[in-house]
Amino acid sequence: MMRHLISAADLSRDEAVQILDTAEEMARVADRPIKKLPTLRGRTVVNLFFEDSTRTRTSFEVAEKRLSADVINFAAKGSSVSKGESLKDTAQTLEAMGVDAVVVRHGASGAPQRLATTGWIDAAVINAGDGTHQHPTQALLDAFTLRRRLLGPEPMGADLKGRRVTLVGDILHSRVARSNVDLLHTLGAHVTLVAPPTLLPVGVETWPCEISYDLDAALGEADAVMMLRVQRERMNAAYFPTEREYARRYGLDGQRMARMPEHAVVMHPGPMVRGMEITAEVADSPRCTVIEQVANGVSVRMAVLYLLLGGQEPAPTHSRPAAVQAEEK
Amino acid sequence: MMRHLISAADLSRDEAVQILDTAEEMARVADRPIKKLPTLRGRTVVNLFFEDSTRTRTSFEVAEKRLSADVINFAAKGSSVSKGESLKDTAQTLEAMGVDAVVVRHGASGAPQRLATTGWIDAAVINAGDGTHQHPTQALLDAFTLRRRLLGPEPMGADLKGRRVTLVGDILHSRVARSNVDLLHTLGAHVTLVAPPTLLPVGVETWPCEISYDLDAALGEADAVMMLRVQRERMNAAYFPTEREYARRYGLDGQRMARMPEHAVVMHPGPMVRGMEITAEVADSPRCTVIEQVANGVSVRMAVLYLLLGGQEPAPTHSRPAAVQAEEK
Amino acid sequence: MMRHLISAADLSRDEAVQILDTAEEMARVADRPIKKLPTLRGRTVVNLFFEDSTRTRTSFEVAEKRLSADVINFAAKGSSVSKGESLKDTAQTLEAMGVDAVVVRHGASGAPQRLATTGWIDAAVINAGDGTHQHPTQALLDAFTLRRRLLGPEPMGADLKGRRVTLVGDILHSRVARSNVDLLHTLGAHVTLVAPPTLLPVGVETWPCEISYDLDAALGEADAVMMLRVQRERMNAAYFPTEREYARRYGLDGQRMARMPEHAVVMHPGPMVRGMEITAEVADSPRCTVIEQVANGVSVRMAVLYLLLGGQEPAPTHSRPAAVQAEEK
Repeated sequence: MMRHLISAADLSRDEAVQILDTAEEMARVADRPIKKLPTLRGRTVVNLFFEDSTRTRTSFEVAEKRLSADVINFAAKGSSVSKGESLKDTAQTLEAMGVDAVVVRHGASGAPQRLATTGWIDAAVINAGDGTHQHPTQALLDAFTLRRRLLGPEPMGADLKGRRVTLVGDILHSRVARSNVDLLHTLGAHVTLVAPPTLLPVGVETWPCEISYDLDAALGEADAVMMLRVQRERMNAAYFPTEREYARRYGLDGQRMARMPEHAVVMHPGPMVRGMEITAEVADSPRCTVIEQVANGVSVRMAVLYLLLGGQEPAPTHSRPAAVQAEEK
Repeated sequence: MMRHLISAADLSRDEAVQILDTAEEMARVADRPIKKLPTLRGRTVVNLFFEDSTRTRTSFEVAEKRLSADVINFAAKGSSVSKGESLKDTAQTLEAMGVDAVVVRHGASGAPQRLATTGWIDAAVINAGDGTHQHPTQALLDAFTLRRRLLGPEPMGADLKGRRVTLVGDILHSRVARSNVDLLHTLGAHVTLVAPPTLLPVGVETWPCEISYDLDAALGEADAVMMLRVQRERMNAAYFPTEREYARRYGLDGQRMARMPEHAVVMHPGPMVRGMEITAEVADSPRCTVIEQVANGVSVRMAVLYLLLGGQEPAPTHSRPAAVQAEEK
Repeated sequence: MMRHLISAADLSRDEAVQILDTAEEMARVADRPIKKLPTLRGRTVVNLFFEDSTRTRTSFEVAEKRLSADVINFAAKGSSVSKGESLKDTAQTLEAMGVDAVVVRHGASGAPQRLATTGWIDAAVINAGDGTHQHPTQALLDAFTLRRRLLGPEPMGADLKGRRVTLVGDILHSRVARSNVDLLHTLGAHVTLVAPPTLLPVGVETWPCEISYDLDAALGEADAVMMLRVQRERMNAAYFPTEREYARRYGLDGQRMARMPEHAVVMHPGPMVRGMEITAEVADSPRCTVIEQVANGVSVRMAVLYLLLGGQEPAPTHSRPAAVQAEEK
């Protein structure tokens, strides 16, 4: 197991499957009378958020507390620490205080990488989203959700070999897209991107996936369609058609959903912009996994924290983590 | 016991007395060497505050931690989640994360009700104040304080039958007034409202209480006078006399306090505006219960959390909760 | 042991040494498999910060959680409680909620003193920095760092008798300087201040230290040089030379550091303004203790909380606190 989790691209197939399997174990903790594991007692985890994200921060915080860690929220947004120099100072300060893991969200692509590789800090670094670069725990929770939906309950050891996943929408600004393309490829899936040409990044032709401009054509064979949030706040008006035009060409409505194979699912990282990228009918259908994705986020983040911090000996793939067996007294 | 606590009007006499009795048990926890109960270990409680209220949030947070819950603060104020659509998204997100209870403060009357009844969320919902509607834990802590002051220590099983309580001031904007009228009536007390006509809400004539415009006349027979905070920030200037005029007609000073029966108490939900609604002499007198109300707030909130979440079998009225007996090891 | 920690000037030599010795014990907790003591279980500590200080607040929060306290963060900055009257209301509210200790940071010199001595609150009050007045835990962590660096590991019972410490820079605005002069004097050290005349406070001639305007002369005999942060934000332009001029006369660079005795150390409370008060070469040299100071801050704050709250019987000087011996089950 790696010491940090910076990018979905860093994970080997076996490492990724190990995280997904461990997350299956973690999901069982929610069914216990006392929904807690003692694994991280006495460990301090800092949520270092340079950008607001109540949703992601809360998911990590629930995961950390369920593992009995001591949690410190450090909202750096707007403060002096949002500048370059002080990322180093902040890192060294947290290191000196004896922090064991830092969950970092930062507006600048590459910030978590710098934290992890400069030697400023010895703690485990977990990337909770950096710029337009990566959001690896999102890709892991998406893969976890897919595995369960396509392969059935507790598909231990399995990857996504041969499955077809279509990502639709604002690829340009999406760290979720980038992370998913990397991880899905590693897990053996075929990925197709569907987006307006203005919302595709430079260099996308080197990514391990196909590109299409025709959503209807891409739906018929997909096992899953992942709709992305359109990040209007990051866009120049010139890049973007009207909302109506966008919805017509790249939005998912009931009619389009009907063209998908019967077993295929609709995913969304949330929060959804209903009406533009997805209609209410699709969002609220049982094929839409948005709520499951949130639930699975807690299990996957517990698994990552467990594997990075939990013990000398990370649990071997397919076996049951010891900490899950030992009921807390 | 109910699954949620949305409005003081929802409580039956026996349910209300059960909460007050349980709060008496909870108050004893503060006298222990280790001031904690293990009751909510492994349960996650989210304080979802769409409006600032350090005072109320801190009271809930102390109560939650004393019951060993994992606590997540979710300050939604100003963020995108303060809009209608996202109340649903926020609720579903918290539900998916496996949250067990949501303590919600919201500027819009009815928001907690919507959370509890739409099926968005399965967790227990506790209303910590919504618009000008309800603030049920405030009414409960007021009733708890009254019961102790008027009936003596640990008056288990008792209600407030036949006691006379006068509420004075800004009834129009006060969720505290609304909650208190409901609960005091349920507990058998006679309630009188004293306020300028412009600070009485439409429909007040249907409330289970009397209305008067003469404070001096209402004091002579009161067992308790509850002064309300004048919410100038919510008022149109036209509604409101000068401060001096207000103080003269509706403020409580030492002279007026002297007209109250010897055993009668002065209450205030805090924070007080000294000089306008209450003079410093009254605020600092031993008849004023404002500090006790704060202390009792923690016990009452522990009781509500305990009864909503604490066990399969809520403690029967008058008996000692098992969790209070079992000392944490 | 005292009930509060308001000013470094309030500590006797024996009390200060007791805190330093206890901090040595606390530092060992970080080496354990589970880095926690059960000492403050069931105790509630409120971090009441009227000024932002993520660094100091985080250090206290880590210390509090390592002692198993329940921690409430109460950010009062900008809210109505930043006014005089409400300091009293806030204090009484926290007291009523059963809070055991309040760690207070306030922009007004004397606010913690008022909290501790007015009878508003019975809880232990710990000053985390008030105006330009005092920051006693900073002085204690500096003394702890000095003792270890100059006397070797775990110098139990020792003070700093005869050691020479030079403080350089913005004395006028520095609560760190004031606290250090008091504590170093109490511990037997000789203190010299070096600063531009405009950055010395009125009355400095009565402080128990020498004053010099010549940094080079003061370096040759120093066992430690403590560089202070220049608080430009608090300064009138007239007080201050150019940055270049300041660096030339009062900054520490490699050449100047070479004049110091070989064993002498460079200290800084952080965050450093590299280039002005200290060059990168000095800041990153092994003689610079800035990171150790941060680490020692956690141990010293644990010691203060332990001694103020930890038991009926505070540990006698030089002996091992019982709570450190008893491993948490």
